[in-house]
Amino acid sequence: MQGRLFILGLGPGDPELMTLKAARILREARHVAFFAKAGRMGHARGIVADLLSPTAEELRFEYPFTTEVALEHPSYAARMGEFYARCAATLATRMDAGQNIALLCEGDAFLYGSAMYLFDRLRDEYTVEIIPGVAGMSGCWSRAQTPIAHGDDVLSVLPGTLDAASLLARLQRCDAAVIMKIGRNLPKIRAVLEQAGLLSRAVYVERGSMEGERIMPLAALADASAPYFAMVLVPGRQHNR
Amino acid sequence: MQGRLFILGLGPGDPELMTLKAARILREARHVAFFAKAGRMGHARGIVADLLSPTAEELRFEYPFTTEVALEHPSYAARMGEFYARCAATLATRMDAGQNIALLCEGDAFLYGSAMYLFDRLRDEYTVEIIPGVAGMSGCWSRAQTPIAHGDDVLSVLPGTLDAASLLARLQRCDAAVIMKIGRNLPKIRAVLEQAGLLSRAVYVERGSMEGERIMPLAALADASAPYFAMVLVPGRQHNR
Repeated sequence: MQGRLFILGLGPGDPELMTLKAARILREARHVAFFAKAGRMGHARGIVADLLSPTAEELRFEYPFTTEVALEHPSYAARMGEFYARCAATLATRMDAGQNIALLCEGDAFLYGSAMYLFDRLRDEYTVEIIPGVAGMSGCWSRAQTPIAHGDDVLSVLPGTLDAASLLARLQRCDAAVIMKIGRNLPKIRAVLEQAGLLSRAVYVERGSMEGERIMPLAALADASAPYFAMVLVPGRQHNR
Repeated sequence: MQGRLFILGLGPGDPELMTLKAARILREARHVAFFAKAGRMGHARGIVADLLSPTAEELRFEYPFTTEVALEHPSYAARMGEFYARCAATLATRMDAGQNIALLCEGDAFLYGSAMYLFDRLRDEYTVEIIPGVAGMSGCWSRAQTPIAHGDDVLSVLPGTLDAASLLARLQRCDAAVIMKIGRNLPKIRAVLEQAGLLSRAVYVERGSMEGERIMPLAALADASAPYFAMVLVPGRQHNR
């Protein structure tokens, strides 16, 4: 019997924000796989630390690089593609041997998650079940007590890596926005929000729902840069009720 | 001692997609409140049917109208505003008497949820905790096995109620999209996606993760209209890896 792959979205960081279904699959899992940066435990692996069976086998997929190769560099996509192909081959070998595998993912796996690249390579030949999770951004706007989208609001999720003109054009065509990938893009993002007349509404969230959480109006943040995984929330409000 | 309000996101419909935290709060809840349409049980109330203590008190907030008054009609906002004010006053009276209340919400409460209008009215005087949930759209794209956003994709959540020109303009400035509020807007949405060259990528999802689920390429859907709560997914893919 061929084994199956369960892709588990584990939520924004607080282990209690995992779904009942993910927790059940995890408690029964004999083989778990997860991505991690070199020298780190791996965010998803950290979330399940207290739930995982001590006898479960762990497959650690360590990214070949993180910031050393720029996203725009021609070798980035090729080298990441090779890495994902190796990970998928490892899972395929296990499933061919009849093993079920739980692939751990922070947030929701199909919203900007690395697991999508393994899914693409395995979906035609293996049974894959996707367990949705609470998105990182939901964790952030809940902790920030910031209702994000109302009624007929258009909500856009924007990478802070966009150039200023592109970011401005997109902000002008939505009512609510979540800006991700802040890092060194912070001054540009702040300037564009000010130009769009949105700075007073913007909320900055760092490590939402985790230890070391920081939440404040973006206008009050003096920092010149921020962690890459910080977010800026721009709540919409088309109709006051 | 003043009571507290817990706003619980309960996920897309499958009770097992509730978070561990929401389930814990719910099992301990002595008083639960929820919105419902006239003559219906209420979607959120349905999700918790098997978890709720039989002795818990239920506060049912029935919408004064659903489709009988158009969103654009001047009286819509005023009458909904009065309704939300009455609901908030009911919760305030209970909290003044020391009761903790769990307000049940489908999906994620701060993403297009009615609970936001009660939160707005209560946040200054009461302690409110927001428990994020799996968004309805996450449930849909997971069930549809459709990874939605990758790398630096711009993801937009668009109401199908937008006019064709606005919808087209927004689709042209994003890489991935979720179109909500389908209903009678289906022919317009299909035409706009065709015009934008996106029809072949679009996936139709009806009742995602619930009984009666229907998932198919939008191009294969012959229907002239769809349920209001159906969704159309347009997956992004900036970089193939």
